Amino acid sequence: METPATQIISVLNAYAAAVLDKDVDAFMALYDDEVCIFDLWAEWSYDGATAWRAVVEDWFGSLDNERVVVIFNDVRTIVTPDLAVAYAFVTYRAESPAGIFLRALTNRMSMSLRQKEGAWKIVHEHTSAPADFNTSKVILQRKAVQGV
Amino acid sequence: METPATQIISVLNAYAAAVLDKDVDAFMALYDDEVCIFDLWAEWSYDGATAWRAVVEDWFGSLDNERVVVIFNDVRTIVTPDLAVAYAFVTYRAESPAGIFLRALTNRMSMSLRQKEGAWKIVHEHTSAPADFNTSKVILQRKAVQGV
Repeated sequence: METPATQIISVLNAYAAAVLDKDVDAFMALYDDEVCIFDLWAEWSYDGATAWRAVVEDWFGSLDNERVVVIFNDVRTIVTPDLAVAYAFVTYRAESPAGIFLRALTNRMSMSLRQKEGAWKIVHEHTSAPADFNTSKVILQRKAVQGV
Repeated sequence: METPATQIISVLNAYAAAVLDKDVDAFMALYDDEVCIFDLWAEWSYDGATAWRAVVEDWFGSLDNERVVVIFNDVRTIVTPDLAVAYAFVTYRAESPAGIFLRALTNRMSMSLRQKEGAWKIVHEHTSAPADFNTSKVILQRKAVQGV
């Protein structure tokens, strides 16, 4: 039987599977309709699943033949009956159709999830990378996971 | 009587007050000993209050005569008996001793808080700003709050 903590890990696994499959519906099924996203790129926030879905469609649509392998590292979870938090480092590794490594970048991700009708849904997600103090540029490689 | 939601807002108010006073002890009293911080600058994470305290001491120590007014905008909270999440846009406005505006920057902040012995403590905090896709530089001004 799944415990609440393993249910949260299952959400992360489903996230990775949906990205690998470029399956927008499977990906969006992880999110609450009222989700608020603080994404790494460009916008301060995306409010609601419709706004977030447009970003995800653009992302998956940009991948052509590539596939993206998602690897969560240092996952930590705090799980209570109705609300859970998960945070981790997440590496997105792009591969050619033959499985050849193309590039990788790492982010930090914090998710808040609510249990609704027996399923955990992401209600808030915050993704970022630390910024270099001198250049203001985001650092998208962690030394410890370089090349992963 | 304070409701749990107003207790979380009180933590944000205490955060702003501690920054204004450059009071490291009051600031650190808001954090759990085991806090994990994903900060905007330089490091992927700070684990534990001791590591975070060193950052805060450097920050407050760098302010000389300036004071920093913290303004939370668009605050949203999710509060359950043992775990709460708060997220917002937060503007740090530096002023001279005479109250003259010097500069301001805005971040996005997501906090996770646990209730322990009657007090809410921050157990995870994630601060960032969105990155420009072409330059990779973090954008530290929100148009809507420019000059705030």
